[in-house]
Amino acid sequence: MGFEVPEHVRPIRERVRQFVEERVYPVESFLFERNHDAEGRAAMTELMDEAKREGLWALGHPKEIGGQGLPFMDYVYVNEVVGRSEQAMIALGTHTLQDSLMLHQHASPEWRDRYLAPLVAGEIYPSFAMTEPAVASSDPTQLQTTAELDGDEWVINGHKWFTTFANRAAYTTVMVKTEQDAPLHRSFSMIVVPTDSEGYNIVRDIPVMGMVEGHCEVIYDNVRVPRTNLLGERGEGFTIAQRRLGPGRIFHCMRWLGQAQRAFDLMCDRVNNRVAFGETLAEKQQIQVMVFDSAAEIQACRLLTLDAAQQMDRGEQARVEISVIKVVGARMLHNVIDRAIQVHGAAGVTSDLPLEHMYRAARFARFVDGPDEVHRSTTARRILRSYREGEGWDFGMRN
Amino acid sequence: MGFEVPEHVRPIRERVRQFVEERVYPVESFLFERNHDAEGRAAMTELMDEAKREGLWALGHPKEIGGQGLPFMDYVYVNEVVGRSEQAMIALGTHTLQDSLMLHQHASPEWRDRYLAPLVAGEIYPSFAMTEPAVASSDPTQLQTTAELDGDEWVINGHKWFTTFANRAAYTTVMVKTEQDAPLHRSFSMIVVPTDSEGYNIVRDIPVMGMVEGHCEVIYDNVRVPRTNLLGERGEGFTIAQRRLGPGRIFHCMRWLGQAQRAFDLMCDRVNNRVAFGETLAEKQQIQVMVFDSAAEIQACRLLTLDAAQQMDRGEQARVEISVIKVVGARMLHNVIDRAIQVHGAAGVTSDLPLEHMYRAARFARFVDGPDEVHRSTTARRILRSYREGEGWDFGMRN
Amino acid sequence: MGFEVPEHVRPIRERVRQFVEERVYPVESFLFERNHDAEGRAAMTELMDEAKREGLWALGHPKEIGGQGLPFMDYVYVNEVVGRSEQAMIALGTHTLQDSLMLHQHASPEWRDRYLAPLVAGEIYPSFAMTEPAVASSDPTQLQTTAELDGDEWVINGHKWFTTFANRAAYTTVMVKTEQDAPLHRSFSMIVVPTDSEGYNIVRDIPVMGMVEGHCEVIYDNVRVPRTNLLGERGEGFTIAQRRLGPGRIFHCMRWLGQAQRAFDLMCDRVNNRVAFGETLAEKQQIQVMVFDSAAEIQACRLLTLDAAQQMDRGEQARVEISVIKVVGARMLHNVIDRAIQVHGAAGVTSDLPLEHMYRAARFARFVDGPDEVHRSTTARRILRSYREGEGWDFGMRN
Amino acid sequence: MGFEVPEHVRPIRERVRQFVEERVYPVESFLFERNHDAEGRAAMTELMDEAKREGLWALGHPKEIGGQGLPFMDYVYVNEVVGRSEQAMIALGTHTLQDSLMLHQHASPEWRDRYLAPLVAGEIYPSFAMTEPAVASSDPTQLQTTAELDGDEWVINGHKWFTTFANRAAYTTVMVKTEQDAPLHRSFSMIVVPTDSEGYNIVRDIPVMGMVEGHCEVIYDNVRVPRTNLLGERGEGFTIAQRRLGPGRIFHCMRWLGQAQRAFDLMCDRVNNRVAFGETLAEKQQIQVMVFDSAAEIQACRLLTLDAAQQMDRGEQARVEISVIKVVGARMLHNVIDRAIQVHGAAGVTSDLPLEHMYRAARFARFVDGPDEVHRSTTARRILRSYREGEGWDFGMRN
Repeated sequence: MGFEVPEHVRPIRERVRQFVEERVYPVESFLFERNHDAEGRAAMTELMDEAKREGLWALGHPKEIGGQGLPFMDYVYVNEVVGRSEQAMIALGTHTLQDSLMLHQHASPEWRDRYLAPLVAGEIYPSFAMTEPAVASSDPTQLQTTAELDGDEWVINGHKWFTTFANRAAYTTVMVKTEQDAPLHRSFSMIVVPTDSEGYNIVRDIPVMGMVEGHCEVIYDNVRVPRTNLLGERGEGFTIAQRRLGPGRIFHCMRWLGQAQRAFDLMCDRVNNRVAFGETLAEKQQIQVMVFDSAAEIQACRLLTLDAAQQMDRGEQARVEISVIKVVGARMLHNVIDRAIQVHGAAGVTSDLPLEHMYRAARFARFVDGPDEVHRSTTARRILRSYREGEGWDFGMRN
Repeated sequence: MGFEVPEHVRPIRERVRQFVEERVYPVESFLFERNHDAEGRAAMTELMDEAKREGLWALGHPKEIGGQGLPFMDYVYVNEVVGRSEQAMIALGTHTLQDSLMLHQHASPEWRDRYLAPLVAGEIYPSFAMTEPAVASSDPTQLQTTAELDGDEWVINGHKWFTTFANRAAYTTVMVKTEQDAPLHRSFSMIVVPTDSEGYNIVRDIPVMGMVEGHCEVIYDNVRVPRTNLLGERGEGFTIAQRRLGPGRIFHCMRWLGQAQRAFDLMCDRVNNRVAFGETLAEKQQIQVMVFDSAAEIQACRLLTLDAAQQMDRGEQARVEISVIKVVGARMLHNVIDRAIQVHGAAGVTSDLPLEHMYRAARFARFVDGPDEVHRSTTARRILRSYREGEGWDFGMRN
Repeated sequence: MGFEVPEHVRPIRERVRQFVEERVYPVESFLFERNHDAEGRAAMTELMDEAKREGLWALGHPKEIGGQGLPFMDYVYVNEVVGRSEQAMIALGTHTLQDSLMLHQHASPEWRDRYLAPLVAGEIYPSFAMTEPAVASSDPTQLQTTAELDGDEWVINGHKWFTTFANRAAYTTVMVKTEQDAPLHRSFSMIVVPTDSEGYNIVRDIPVMGMVEGHCEVIYDNVRVPRTNLLGERGEGFTIAQRRLGPGRIFHCMRWLGQAQRAFDLMCDRVNNRVAFGETLAEKQQIQVMVFDSAAEIQACRLLTLDAAQQMDRGEQARVEISVIKVVGARMLHNVIDRAIQVHGAAGVTSDLPLEHMYRAARFARFVDGPDEVHRSTTARRILRSYREGEGWDFGMRN
Repeated sequence: MGFEVPEHVRPIRERVRQFVEERVYPVESFLFERNHDAEGRAAMTELMDEAKREGLWALGHPKEIGGQGLPFMDYVYVNEVVGRSEQAMIALGTHTLQDSLMLHQHASPEWRDRYLAPLVAGEIYPSFAMTEPAVASSDPTQLQTTAELDGDEWVINGHKWFTTFANRAAYTTVMVKTEQDAPLHRSFSMIVVPTDSEGYNIVRDIPVMGMVEGHCEVIYDNVRVPRTNLLGERGEGFTIAQRRLGPGRIFHCMRWLGQAQRAFDLMCDRVNNRVAFGETLAEKQQIQVMVFDSAAEIQACRLLTLDAAQQMDRGEQARVEISVIKVVGARMLHNVIDRAIQVHGAAGVTSDLPLEHMYRAARFARFVDGPDEVHRSTTARRILRSYREGEGWDFGMRN
């Protein structure tokens, strides 16, 4: 009972942690800054090779597609230490997990054959296109990119952005409206589009919070792809996306916890060593409150996340639990990094420490995969409905 | 793995819940208001008898002293439903658990013989005297009540308050300074004082937040008790108190969760039924945010508490974990009740609902058993020390 | 420019402050506890007489109705010191101001003649009936109490609660639905009902937060009053109420500031004197943060309130400003009192200090005169509309 | 009474606002990105010339040094609109105000002659060196850079960073320890160092939050400057710095208000136009709460700042008031920008809008000119002292 890293997971988790701290940290800023040029990419390839040699590659990918097949709950624990560095996610192959599963489960044989192996091997990058500048993505039924069948080809037109990695990916899975007469939530489909397709035009790599890291804006101008590029069935777009998102949010949250724990470690080391007005910062109560609140928020979020993971592992959808960790986790992430910066003073915002980059990246957490506002409303409505149905809600504690 | 009510605990937990809702709720306000008169006490005795008949009495007391011996973790889960009503704690005998254990473990045979059985049976009330009006109890080394040995008797002088139940208890366990030359934390002892001792003067039953519920102010004016009334050894006062507090805080927190869940249930039912501006409150986002935040805070606190309980059950002191739940729990308790009141508007502050009483009582949570401020500082210092010692702190997640 | 107590207001403000501190404070708890019996009321009458003798009575009432006619802005500053004690409001005649103005401006000559002079003189109490238990008062168009004309009499039926002072008032001004075919906001009227009318049945003096202070529940069972008891015109109920509320909220807020300043004074004195762990609380950073935050919140709220008062004094409605101070003020009030309690520990919740009573009473502030939630929505919509109309909103700072 | 833009200030304030919105906004991102190259600087020079032609240059500089001599309170109001864009500060000459005054008041005639005129004219940039990487600047008595007199020259050694503009400035005013035997707060002095001095080595332009905007790290390696480069007297460093900081913080805060108001405008326009789930964001309560809270925080902060300015204008130090606006202002700034980003979703973090840059820059506000933590402690201690001295504190409202 309770949550702790299972005995058999500890060794692999520890090896991953060491890899992240010893191999990734030293080249982390280089990888961020040079992500778009050849030298940066070569450095990443080298790191990937190292991970493969050490047996740390694609730990969570199922064995049948070439991964190491770590069970879900084991992998959840590992993800917290992977998450300490965004670059580690790529170096260890974590970044292709969701897309690999999607291809594996929904793609036609030819695309499976073409992309799956190199994707799992980290030889090609995936990308995923949902968000559009013209409409609020919080309500995805508003998306306007369309695909129409013209003979045996889909003809795609539209305007997407935040298609992460588009400028280095082999293909983009794009969410498009394909059905005109179906109910809205059954009108969208997902289609695989090779990035070298004609009419697939990358407008720019959008600087976000000052980071130019591959969040591309892409115009689809009569892009034609074979009919078989459809994932699953017509109208299944949202269903597939939802399936992708669920465990994805657990992994997200575990990685946020990794980020937060890293910031917390930096915070504690700093305040133990920095002196002002004749004593270390550690001796000041305002600092102690920051330490306490951070520890409490991290641990609360960790338990909530592990609990949600556990529900999913039992085959439940755990929608309430997942929305809770999304909202609570995003806030926790910001708070802990923010406090870590504060105790560092000016140093905290310089590129000498990873904190400022983490701070900027953390701002995304509150709107990606649905803004917090939507999660709050949806979840509350779900809980309130269960009361109207005479059940109530106490997260499974009720007899 | 994970936390849920164990299968074998569900039936007893469910029966307790029913008892609390069906038997205690209807007479709850009567019991609060009339706690100091004969009629009120008779009503309570009747309730106790009912609980005994139904086999729900003294569930957590060890079997060897006459309880039902529910194991710690099982009892933790039961405590959440007991805690929905403060009166239920008494009706089910929970209120004597800590004192029974203290007598059982530390009292001399004669006092054990005299008090233990009737205490476990609910025939007499215990009381416990720590706090003094003249000094900040956050720093108990300042306490000024003294006991001096005069022959075979302790002579006690001092001024205590917040000695809960003193006006209906058979005896008070009082924390007194007995050693003049020992280090401060070894200078205090606990002594059992029958409430009918000469010089044991109850000054008043202090109204707190408008409730007159037995938080007595007591002056010890040359109170003489036999030498054997000492609990444990001389100078062990704080050690015994600490031992009492540890699991006590877990039970506190579970009961706070019970209170919060009850408030949450009231909140959800209200907003599902109340209409304003053409829709139920449930449809308004500001209300949804209250529901979401409450659910998230309750569940986070529940997992933190269960996790701390688990640590204790394994024989660890879990000091950090316990301070975290004390602080987080007290805030959660206030927040949830406060929101429940808000959605009820004026009705929320009337005596027609239990919320206003819960709100007032909840204010205590932030300073009883050490003010939050002390817990925050102590805990942060403990965490920071572990960093200085090269260990760091991630609540046991670190390999 | 700027806000400060005008030179000519200082002497009267100082005399009021002295009266409140020296005459009211000592008998304050007596007045609260005994508000419903003869002895308590006699003590209040004595205090009122004293205030009259000292020339501090009815300072803000217009001269033409027997008050001292202090101009609005002057009176605003005085109200902050009156507000330090709820009982001072009554002792100084402040409690009848809104009702006196309402009678003066809207009542028919006979009722004016009958009630106005004794009301201003403090010989009779007014009461005001709006809230009903059956509907959310946040949306007053739902109110269900009706009045129908039967010949020259209104026949009133309905169920009100929170009719403060009903059990000692000469009359109640009751908001009733009189028009069936008018638009909702023009369907309600206000009618003066003598409390000795047949069918005017006080059900109970509802205990609220444990205080039994005259928040009565009243059933109107075919209560008949003359046609001329109508205030203003038929259907003007909300208009008159709004007119009553506007400056009323300013006074409320100033009194909240008075309460907060009083709590702040208690907090600062306590922490300067209380010792824990070898130093005064004043030297601890967590306490310093409480002091800082309280000072900042009080001063922000004070300036916002004076600014809103200023707008009103210029004849503007200042609806945004007034909603802002209502919400910000209610939160500030709670926060400051709450912190003052916390630094007092157990003493803070006892009846030995005024804090616990203030804490309980402060809970009302968040839903009286419209719950905060409604003020937030209404105000935001007003601001957003001004943007849609091309104006924007910067509280008058825009050129 | 009250605060509003004085009639005679409105025209100039309006012209400044137009200049900022029409001339600066369009080239703002260009100026940020290209601040370090010739083209960027040329663009800035052009803007400066435009401002001069329109009579908007150096509005707040005293007339006797070549400015337009706007009185303090008038200039405060103007600063809010200047502050909407950091670049506007430079374009309008605001960025040299503090340094111009410092030279004017404290420099020896030769340096005054050499630098003052071109500084006021915007032909040269100033820079100011306080912070050092090795010590916590919150406690400036720890600063380690020293200057020793060697004949008629100061020999400066040390390591500073966050010397803003060092890479384009003509000179740096550097805070150095000059006295070994004086009390700490009298041991530091300020010395003017031309940036082309030998041994003045700019190590790098530190990227902060991803912005490379001239926050330079500088090593002083036996830098020699004439004895007359001293500002004021030996040991007056902190006194001069304090004098510089006081009104500087008022201007800071007004500019933060300008930033916040700009973000607020963007927020309101966005939510009025963006649709999700069948209605504009403006119609959703969670958004309305963001609008309400932002408006309330902006207005509270604005009044607090104007009130503090007013105190200063009367010749008071207003230390409490200034610390309050520093802390409250920095938090308000973050909150409002943060909410503006949230309502924009992904767009909010792109370089298409100024919000993400404002968000990053806003993070500095909580530690520049003393971290919030120090302001809170210092201010609380000051307030508490006034209570110990029998005065108490109510921001001048007390009679």
